[in-house]
Amino acid sequence: MTERIPVAVLGATGMVGQRFLQFLDGHPWFEVVALTASEGRVGRRYRDAVDWRLPQPMPAWAEDMVLGSTSPEGVGEARLVFSALPSGVAREVEPRFAARGIWVCSNASAYRREPDVPLLVPEVNPDHIALVERQRRERGWPAAILTNPNCTTTGLVIALAPLYRSFGLKWVFVASLQALSGAGYPGVPSLAILDNVIPHIPGEEDKVEWEPRKILGSLEGEEVRLADVTLSAHTHRVPVWDGHTLAVSVALGRPASLDEVVVVLEGYEPPASTRDLPSAPRPVIAVRSEPDRPQPRLDRDTGRGMTTVVGRVRPDPLGHVKFTVLSHNTIRGAVGGAVYNGEWLARYLGWQ
Amino acid sequence: MTERIPVAVLGATGMVGQRFLQFLDGHPWFEVVALTASEGRVGRRYRDAVDWRLPQPMPAWAEDMVLGSTSPEGVGEARLVFSALPSGVAREVEPRFAARGIWVCSNASAYRREPDVPLLVPEVNPDHIALVERQRRERGWPAAILTNPNCTTTGLVIALAPLYRSFGLKWVFVASLQALSGAGYPGVPSLAILDNVIPHIPGEEDKVEWEPRKILGSLEGEEVRLADVTLSAHTHRVPVWDGHTLAVSVALGRPASLDEVVVVLEGYEPPASTRDLPSAPRPVIAVRSEPDRPQPRLDRDTGRGMTTVVGRVRPDPLGHVKFTVLSHNTIRGAVGGAVYNGEWLARYLGWQ
Amino acid sequence: MTERIPVAVLGATGMVGQRFLQFLDGHPWFEVVALTASEGRVGRRYRDAVDWRLPQPMPAWAEDMVLGSTSPEGVGEARLVFSALPSGVAREVEPRFAARGIWVCSNASAYRREPDVPLLVPEVNPDHIALVERQRRERGWPAAILTNPNCTTTGLVIALAPLYRSFGLKWVFVASLQALSGAGYPGVPSLAILDNVIPHIPGEEDKVEWEPRKILGSLEGEEVRLADVTLSAHTHRVPVWDGHTLAVSVALGRPASLDEVVVVLEGYEPPASTRDLPSAPRPVIAVRSEPDRPQPRLDRDTGRGMTTVVGRVRPDPLGHVKFTVLSHNTIRGAVGGAVYNGEWLARYLGWQ
Amino acid sequence: MTERIPVAVLGATGMVGQRFLQFLDGHPWFEVVALTASEGRVGRRYRDAVDWRLPQPMPAWAEDMVLGSTSPEGVGEARLVFSALPSGVAREVEPRFAARGIWVCSNASAYRREPDVPLLVPEVNPDHIALVERQRRERGWPAAILTNPNCTTTGLVIALAPLYRSFGLKWVFVASLQALSGAGYPGVPSLAILDNVIPHIPGEEDKVEWEPRKILGSLEGEEVRLADVTLSAHTHRVPVWDGHTLAVSVALGRPASLDEVVVVLEGYEPPASTRDLPSAPRPVIAVRSEPDRPQPRLDRDTGRGMTTVVGRVRPDPLGHVKFTVLSHNTIRGAVGGAVYNGEWLARYLGWQ
Repeated sequence: MTERIPVAVLGATGMVGQRFLQFLDGHPWFEVVALTASEGRVGRRYRDAVDWRLPQPMPAWAEDMVLGSTSPEGVGEARLVFSALPSGVAREVEPRFAARGIWVCSNASAYRREPDVPLLVPEVNPDHIALVERQRRERGWPAAILTNPNCTTTGLVIALAPLYRSFGLKWVFVASLQALSGAGYPGVPSLAILDNVIPHIPGEEDKVEWEPRKILGSLEGEEVRLADVTLSAHTHRVPVWDGHTLAVSVALGRPASLDEVVVVLEGYEPPASTRDLPSAPRPVIAVRSEPDRPQPRLDRDTGRGMTTVVGRVRPDPLGHVKFTVLSHNTIRGAVGGAVYNGEWLARYLGWQ
Repeated sequence: MTERIPVAVLGATGMVGQRFLQFLDGHPWFEVVALTASEGRVGRRYRDAVDWRLPQPMPAWAEDMVLGSTSPEGVGEARLVFSALPSGVAREVEPRFAARGIWVCSNASAYRREPDVPLLVPEVNPDHIALVERQRRERGWPAAILTNPNCTTTGLVIALAPLYRSFGLKWVFVASLQALSGAGYPGVPSLAILDNVIPHIPGEEDKVEWEPRKILGSLEGEEVRLADVTLSAHTHRVPVWDGHTLAVSVALGRPASLDEVVVVLEGYEPPASTRDLPSAPRPVIAVRSEPDRPQPRLDRDTGRGMTTVVGRVRPDPLGHVKFTVLSHNTIRGAVGGAVYNGEWLARYLGWQ
Repeated sequence: MTERIPVAVLGATGMVGQRFLQFLDGHPWFEVVALTASEGRVGRRYRDAVDWRLPQPMPAWAEDMVLGSTSPEGVGEARLVFSALPSGVAREVEPRFAARGIWVCSNASAYRREPDVPLLVPEVNPDHIALVERQRRERGWPAAILTNPNCTTTGLVIALAPLYRSFGLKWVFVASLQALSGAGYPGVPSLAILDNVIPHIPGEEDKVEWEPRKILGSLEGEEVRLADVTLSAHTHRVPVWDGHTLAVSVALGRPASLDEVVVVLEGYEPPASTRDLPSAPRPVIAVRSEPDRPQPRLDRDTGRGMTTVVGRVRPDPLGHVKFTVLSHNTIRGAVGGAVYNGEWLARYLGWQ
Repeated sequence: MTERIPVAVLGATGMVGQRFLQFLDGHPWFEVVALTASEGRVGRRYRDAVDWRLPQPMPAWAEDMVLGSTSPEGVGEARLVFSALPSGVAREVEPRFAARGIWVCSNASAYRREPDVPLLVPEVNPDHIALVERQRRERGWPAAILTNPNCTTTGLVIALAPLYRSFGLKWVFVASLQALSGAGYPGVPSLAILDNVIPHIPGEEDKVEWEPRKILGSLEGEEVRLADVTLSAHTHRVPVWDGHTLAVSVALGRPASLDEVVVVLEGYEPPASTRDLPSAPRPVIAVRSEPDRPQPRLDRDTGRGMTTVVGRVRPDPLGHVKFTVLSHNTIRGAVGGAVYNGEWLARYLGWQ
């Protein structure tokens, strides 16, 4: 293996942090050179400080890494950091990295709505990466912050993108059945969810109703013009480990047959710029024809967890079409999305 | 206790049959004089033939009852039967009872769409009971069949009724998270639902998109004119024992504030004719103000399982208002609904 | 209702505290006059400070009670307090109550092993209450502390007691499958237990191997002589809300037929002194003859949750007999046991 | 890949059948040339006839295979068949294969107790394979039937074997918490196990108390002398997908320290004859030192599901040592065990 790009993971001990390590294990371009944690864990070996909750074993290279502080000083030679920080912490510390010339691919929501911060899904809007020029110039930073969307937004917007491109979109109704891993660890108490569902996830509906509009929006100069689509979201927590299931109804810009819709979904390809990146999903969207799929337990790992699975495509009495979307929330909807963003950034900057 | 009305339960050994026995235990008007089952169980004592799955003990009076055949001959002196039969069987045998002068309150879907069969929710459309006159006359039966709606329809239509009456309704989106008990026993295999949800319940979406239109429809002469509302439904099975949770978005006929909506929901009263029947829910609708309620485990037993619980009333970006509905699917949505119908019938016929 | 005994609940906002309120609702002897909580919640109304997790509604009388501090000053006129405190806190504060003349019925483990503190199960060893005389004299307190055993010990020792009395006991092997409510709220994270079991509950096996020896021990003068029985325990957490299931093998002091064992279990009666107390279980032990009972979901509420359910009585290849025990861990194994102790104390002290 | 041994899977559409296909996918020695099913499915393509329940996709080579009848005529050129048949069917049809010169590695319990049929665990008793000579001679068959033990026995006996060899064994207590996949599909209804455990698995305790005695027994001439160990078993079903957890207490033949026990478990190696077979687990036994491991969700896939995981090694008050064992019931305890047996057979017969 020749020289890989040194990267770090911020907030490496939480559920998303653990998934980052797993996803980056054996990555062809990136080498993890530093892991950070909150104050109390700094200085401890990763394997001693983490409560590893994944069924797959911890990558061997991570076991003895000593946790650094979540600061530019804590990440050694890393040129790029993947942030699994909670939003409040992210808001405070991510700028310090950019200001020191370290690029940030953040899974946090803190900067997603900033007009100069790209909210990137490489299959959908890789051109929005150009916002980093504005960000660097206006903020005077040598590097910049890039974000990936909320885990529920991610699966939704990937399924909507081909419809938007081909037929236009007027409105979208979405009801989610979201996995427990999205709430982190310890997260949802078992007594709260056994024999139960919870019809509320703080802040989630706002994100799902807004973020797709930025992602599907067009870059005009250095401004993203929000897509003219209205979304209505209902979000629920269900007793599932991984995999968000979405019930989606849409009104298209112009009528289309179910066959046309399926063809467009199945045939969707990322732009050429991001199509062959290491984490690009193959396929981007898998369409299932069984009456009862996708299901989280059976379909979440499709395409190593990077593929968005769509099923039950059928007519909608109010709009045009309704269907079910399944997306792996901690892979495609979090770490896989961030790493895919990092790959696109590395190519964009000419590192690869 | 003075003379009670003799009734029977058809299909008494299944999950819904068991719930009927439990619900009828101690009923002030009805006395269960016969229980029926499919051929192989006829002649056995109830306690030997049933695989009792409810946490509450079997009513003592049922234990030694001998199962009769599901025919007019099998129900002794019963004047009214509650049918927990599967739809195919119901279609064939329920008419035989009506033809012999035995009234049928059916939980099956078989006759719900017949124009001369009332699809009744006593809180909502008790006047539709008049269809039994047409049914008797046209079919030449001394008695008639009455039906209650699908369990998902029930909670939905009770929450919609006050909005429809006060503001009108243009369209409704509904996504359900439905309990396992709705699929009967053995029903959903554990391997199919542990760490999973299933985005498909055969035939359910059709029922949910159509039945509310008949229930909210107006009786014109001896014809129900379907309500002019369009519904779009997505249905899902989730690992919950009892209690269907519904995410609902509606466009009203005219705008209304959230406060108006809440006042109308909380203040909803059944018509005077059905308000004081023994199984009338008190209140009909409970509105919760917490951000994360209703939840099936915590709220399904509200009002002995007969109350419909609404929460999360908030603005909808597409229509006017969105909210969450919870309804006990095997009580309000099945046996409680059928018994409440039976009570209304008993009053209508002057038996009480 | 004439004058009831004023009592308080210490630690009223946790899972066990909530169960205390529910269990004491409508109690014929006790009136709850005060509720206490940890510092941050003192002064708030109960309904505002608690995250109520039980499906049954909060007792109306509790809603507006203002939380007091967990100290003799915080419980008003209460003559008896029920303690739902964690063990560390209990160790520190429970003596202050006894020192001020307020009796303590504690569910905490802090004082269970003290030689002058009764570890009481009123069906089994009500005579041990006499230890309070020694406790008051030696510690110079006007009142005293009484304890009930660990929730797993409780079901086990009630099933063992009749065997011990009738046949003697040499050894006991027990493996538990324990409910989540035993760990409190938030307690076990959902990600830790969905599609999983946890073969470890800190400190539990020690308690289960020791406590039955004190409870079955004989009071000689003012000393409990531990029963000469050896126990080996394995404890596990399983995804069940309420109800601990125990697999038990025993070697009796002398051989007995399975019929003799069943007769002795079914016929077990508390001593006359505690038999007719308000919370006395009826029956103490229910023996089920089905091959697959007891089961927590179906049997935990037997006898209002106070009855111990035994099933699968069969020969043991190593000892004499093996069987399954089910006990409601937060009712019989916690609040019901403490209140039953309180009733026995009230009678012992001549308050009733 | 040069010539592989043609094999078939009997009963290929059930849960165990599906696991066989997955486990044999890419096997270095065996090539699946036929799949069989019950009468109604014969002649259909595998992908059309099966309700595939595993999260991993169906092997591509299986999709279009046409299901044959479960008879020597239905398996083409296969020289060896892996049987996933229910016990009743196995009893009837497995002999037909052996009588026609086709070797049978059976997961069914039908022939396990026959004195001339090896009950094989290649890590433990590979020498018992010699019983096939007696079987062929006495039954006049050109081939023979080999069996692997019950899934609960498998994990137990692998953990016991090193203790038995090093210290001797007097008695064993075992209480199991068994996964749902052991009951097949549809198997356990979801309503039977949600918020519940079931303390009964028909026939299981008998198997667990007897089978280890044959496996640990010594081959004397053509007779297995049962090991002189007494076992007492309690078995339970729990809401876990895969992975049986066993609580085990043992009395050794001579005392040993916990350290000695751990060293013996960790150091256990299969006999040289079976150590390097393709499916030999590496390691055979993994010993975990955390206080709360093994757990099914986190540890069942250790060593590709072939490793037996032991933890919580601690003193037992009645015998010498107690510990927890975890074994993947449908891999190590079923298909992996059968395939490992098949490999050992292929070597024994000189096919490899």
